Amino acid sequence: MGFGSFLKIFTPKDRVFYSLFEEVSSNLTQMGDIFHKAVNETDFNAREALLKGLEEWEHKNDEVTHRIFIELGSNFITPFDREDIHYLATSLDDIADYIWGSAKRMMNYYINDVDETMLGFADIIQKAIIALNKGVYGLRDMKDLRAITEACVLINSYENEGDDMLDKGMMTLFSSNINPVDLIKKKDLYQMLEIVTDKCEDAANVIESIIIKYA
Amino acid sequence: MGFGSFLKIFTPKDRVFYSLFEEVSSNLTQMGDIFHKAVNETDFNAREALLKGLEEWEHKNDEVTHRIFIELGSNFITPFDREDIHYLATSLDDIADYIWGSAKRMMNYYINDVDETMLGFADIIQKAIIALNKGVYGLRDMKDLRAITEACVLINSYENEGDDMLDKGMMTLFSSNINPVDLIKKKDLYQMLEIVTDKCEDAANVIESIIIKYA
Amino acid sequence: MGFGSFLKIFTPKDRVFYSLFEEVSSNLTQMGDIFHKAVNETDFNAREALLKGLEEWEHKNDEVTHRIFIELGSNFITPFDREDIHYLATSLDDIADYIWGSAKRMMNYYINDVDETMLGFADIIQKAIIALNKGVYGLRDMKDLRAITEACVLINSYENEGDDMLDKGMMTLFSSNINPVDLIKKKDLYQMLEIVTDKCEDAANVIESIIIKYA
Repeated sequence: MGFGSFLKIFTPKDRVFYSLFEEVSSNLTQMGDIFHKAVNETDFNAREALLKGLEEWEHKNDEVTHRIFIELGSNFITPFDREDIHYLATSLDDIADYIWGSAKRMMNYYINDVDETMLGFADIIQKAIIALNKGVYGLRDMKDLRAITEACVLINSYENEGDDMLDKGMMTLFSSNINPVDLIKKKDLYQMLEIVTDKCEDAANVIESIIIKYA
Repeated sequence: MGFGSFLKIFTPKDRVFYSLFEEVSSNLTQMGDIFHKAVNETDFNAREALLKGLEEWEHKNDEVTHRIFIELGSNFITPFDREDIHYLATSLDDIADYIWGSAKRMMNYYINDVDETMLGFADIIQKAIIALNKGVYGLRDMKDLRAITEACVLINSYENEGDDMLDKGMMTLFSSNINPVDLIKKKDLYQMLEIVTDKCEDAANVIESIIIKYA
Repeated sequence: MGFGSFLKIFTPKDRVFYSLFEEVSSNLTQMGDIFHKAVNETDFNAREALLKGLEEWEHKNDEVTHRIFIELGSNFITPFDREDIHYLATSLDDIADYIWGSAKRMMNYYINDVDETMLGFADIIQKAIIALNKGVYGLRDMKDLRAITEACVLINSYENEGDDMLDKGMMTLFSSNINPVDLIKKKDLYQMLEIVTDKCEDAANVIESIIIKYA
């Protein structure tokens, strides 16, 4: 079933992909935690410092992602289908980009009053990344397929929560008397936060398709 | 020419993909009809009921799309290239998502005055989906390639109409004295409606690329 | 290393891809120049004429892109991996679409006061496309891999400049006393201009992945 099984004997070289994906996934976990801490931080300067700190993590992640693509180009043997590696690397990189993008919007748009919607998204994103981390680490030995599947199902449910959070946030904005410019700022931020949960789901979908083929 | 011809002997198992795509396509036809009816419905409560009803169709479609990906992961033999199945399933699923997304925006943003642009989009979307349905059903026996091609050409022309509709709608908004918050709402809705036509074109492009390879 | 080397003997038929990509790339160079000239033109009517002229280039490009996909569907032998041809054609086509889209926004949104951010983007986009053109023309003989790599690195740095330009532009908008509707117009335009630089980066990434495999 699938091409994977007979390739499993070529282990030494292709192991590098597991390590690289685990590194990306650990970085994302840090980013999810920092963003959550920032949004819950009431002191303005402390929050700005936390948000600014995310840029370095995003850069770090860019480099690891770039290494994944280099390895993909130069390795004939890969532990999963080449396009799955490509999609997984891309969607994990997108998660980092959009978390940092959300942080940047908070700073550049001068959004200083953290509201329920932002707090809710920070929660959902942190939890989705923790589940994603389990999924990514599970790929190395594929011993506990049920745990990987459960992590993916969980991420899908967080993405649904993100959709509802966005709907609720927009309804609140549009039924409030907020001035148009502040509405634009918050709408843009909410939409970017929702994309973070979409990208977690994209990554989960790739992981699911990997384990279906190699089970 | 292409890999397809010699695979055609493996019919029993790979037939499942045709049925699943046809199911998705029939669901989309329903969604196009319901959205069209909703936008043309003058009674507020009746319109809301129709718009709300689209959620169920979107969920139904999600499930069939999920089954396509499961089959794709577990079937070694597929009737077309694996990536074409992947892209077709994704773009059809996107159509359902963005129709439901447009309906949700109308409700959540409290957009109650249906205008020419919305009516125009509902027309274009309904027609594009009817053409798409012909294209999808044509894939099973590939007997009438000219009819499939004509359907794809038609969908491309509807996508162009959608572009023009968006341009005209935006020019109207920006040259009107509409208040900024209402402008934001309508702009967002128009843009999502235009994406529906883009996704129809994406699906048509996959269908075209399938028949080029297997003709 | 890679599948490319032993395919290089099939030159006559697959050469068509180089010519088509070079044609697209030359069109894009024209578009980058015209857009740059338009944004720097102070006479309103002359600027509109230049912006309107971009539509024809965009259509021309659509046709060449379409021919690339036709060739891809009917040629068994391709000079690079099929998906690289697909991605490269798509991202180059997107560049043309988003330049024309930006021009259209300037016209349809009645944006007549060209500002620093628009001028800056026109500069970045023109330079990124010139670098991209070098990369695309380098693919035919692959003799100067270093020059191709340098072009790609340059494009990546322009994309970073585009990100910073967008951030700066948005901060300026949100800290100004601009009225909300004008803010919406400019924000939309800036975001589309930034996407042009993203698409240049996408194209550069495909070129990099091609030369990694075929070096």
